[in-house]
Amino acid sequence: MGNGMEKRITSILGKSKVNGILLFNGDPIKGTDPNFLYYSGTKFDGSIFFATKRGRMLFTSRMNYEYARKTSPIPVEEIKKRDKWKSIAPYMKDSKIIGVDMLSLSASDFIQLKKKLHKRFVNIGDELRKIREIKSEKEIRQIKRAVGITKRIMRDVEVSKKRTEIDVANELLSRTLGYGCKPAFDPIVSSGKGTSFPHYRPKRKKLNGVVLIDYGVRYKDYCSDITRCFFLGPSKKERGLYGKVRMVFDEIVDALPSFEYAKDIANRYKKLSRRHGLPKPIHSAGHGIGLDVHEHPGINARSKEKLKENMVFAIEPGAYLKDFGARYENVVVYKRKKAIVL
Amino acid sequence: MGNGMEKRITSILGKSKVNGILLFNGDPIKGTDPNFLYYSGTKFDGSIFFATKRGRMLFTSRMNYEYARKTSPIPVEEIKKRDKWKSIAPYMKDSKIIGVDMLSLSASDFIQLKKKLHKRFVNIGDELRKIREIKSEKEIRQIKRAVGITKRIMRDVEVSKKRTEIDVANELLSRTLGYGCKPAFDPIVSSGKGTSFPHYRPKRKKLNGVVLIDYGVRYKDYCSDITRCFFLGPSKKERGLYGKVRMVFDEIVDALPSFEYAKDIANRYKKLSRRHGLPKPIHSAGHGIGLDVHEHPGINARSKEKLKENMVFAIEPGAYLKDFGARYENVVVYKRKKAIVL
Repeated sequence: MGNGMEKRITSILGKSKVNGILLFNGDPIKGTDPNFLYYSGTKFDGSIFFATKRGRMLFTSRMNYEYARKTSPIPVEEIKKRDKWKSIAPYMKDSKIIGVDMLSLSASDFIQLKKKLHKRFVNIGDELRKIREIKSEKEIRQIKRAVGITKRIMRDVEVSKKRTEIDVANELLSRTLGYGCKPAFDPIVSSGKGTSFPHYRPKRKKLNGVVLIDYGVRYKDYCSDITRCFFLGPSKKERGLYGKVRMVFDEIVDALPSFEYAKDIANRYKKLSRRHGLPKPIHSAGHGIGLDVHEHPGINARSKEKLKENMVFAIEPGAYLKDFGARYENVVVYKRKKAIVL
Repeated sequence: MGNGMEKRITSILGKSKVNGILLFNGDPIKGTDPNFLYYSGTKFDGSIFFATKRGRMLFTSRMNYEYARKTSPIPVEEIKKRDKWKSIAPYMKDSKIIGVDMLSLSASDFIQLKKKLHKRFVNIGDELRKIREIKSEKEIRQIKRAVGITKRIMRDVEVSKKRTEIDVANELLSRTLGYGCKPAFDPIVSSGKGTSFPHYRPKRKKLNGVVLIDYGVRYKDYCSDITRCFFLGPSKKERGLYGKVRMVFDEIVDALPSFEYAKDIANRYKKLSRRHGLPKPIHSAGHGIGLDVHEHPGINARSKEKLKENMVFAIEPGAYLKDFGARYENVVVYKRKKAIVL
């Protein structure tokens, strides 16, 4: 494990012009920063990780210091809240250009960094995420397990006219705990008219017609993300729409060997929607998934990324009409130019 | 509700030099930004809120646009991912100085804002949080309800030698769902040696000796945060330590009418720890609580804040020895110079 982390860091330092990487993991309430976890191999909150070619160092608050010192795979120093930058500065004296992740770094910390440390700070957020998009076999197994648990939960959850959207959301969450997992995100459970809106929030409303569930669990830090539709009563039109959306999904998967770029998936989604008489897509065709529910590669028309062996991503075609909608989503791993559904 | 939001904004615009307030609510995975919720009254993800003295405006992604337009109390515009700043710029033409929350704004968005909008951006994060620290009676009722549910959960959860820390953490979470609430944060359940570390993470380890539970639920967006210790077997020394920590809590509450500043609580915590023969504190004496688990006022020696009517905060004295520790925590509301335990 420690060795794997070192390789990841060497890879970043080799590719970019930075002499050091500085990563933050803030308030425990917000959850662990995925780059911090991936490159430091630790989850201590209120902590800072600094790595150069010569070594790695963890800085943590007084409160966590003893715990971190006893359990951390890398050396730990205490940071005082009063002068957190002073504790780090000595370790940076040989590094002129420091890579940070400007997407997760707050503007406030960024301004402080520049003021207190007198270094050049460069955004390597993209590089940090690009390494993460190629998964190891172990990571793929963990995502596959998260997906398997989510599918079982979706199979077992009771979807009936007696129940409200919130009832179903709560059952999804409690089944998640039963598997020793955590929710990867708040479940979307919508029914009837609510399915017209992709990011609907569940209400105390009895289920009727089409029921859309978009949910995923986090298993050993790795996420899943699955969407299924269920039908109460005849719901003929709704079933028809779902059938088309599933066809779009299958046709995208079948076409994958002919694609070179992630954006090809998005373009095909648009084209297939038109061909099946569905409205123009209002959200992306998918997204990379791993430690984050949404991560690299982006599966949208603006993405510039090539499809690469062992990328893992969700494909989620959807169609939203005035009175109802449908979406179908699975996680796939890209192997030998094929998308293997997990 | 809409009216209350307007008052909050007028109050900010009256006190600071800014002509507009710009707030962001990002990825739904991270949870709703508390300032965004408090000032816009909405939770739409991937959205931007802009307010001046003359009006309020919500900008949201194409995916959420229809849903937001139908349910938002304030006008909504769609933002295109390709040129999100362009959609906002026209609304800013009369505002020279724009207030943002640099603690939640990412460094990346901050750099983009400066580059694309050619305005002066000022950090009003502190002002935004300071208004939130004085709670309305309705907010106090919501926090009191969150606290009540948490206390009931702690009373009902099974703490026994047959169970592991993770078993208890899962039961806390599943009872939370039973009350229709969400966890405010991941439960801390530690036992024996684990209680020496304030931010310990629960393990598959059978409970023994002292068991510390630090947990809170989120009820209608408002948080609670409570810590209790339980004892399996005689645990004489552990009970003694907990008794002292509870005494420190009671003595702080009793002394509150003589305090003027939040830092007085922290100083008294330090002094009382010494008087009771406890080690020097390694974490703060408490923290404000509301939409965020940790918010203003800070209850620590560096805090400059005065105690004010209707502030709500947690007081959490703890003591951590080599082989075990103890902490006791309640949420209080500051009324007529007294701390009323919720």
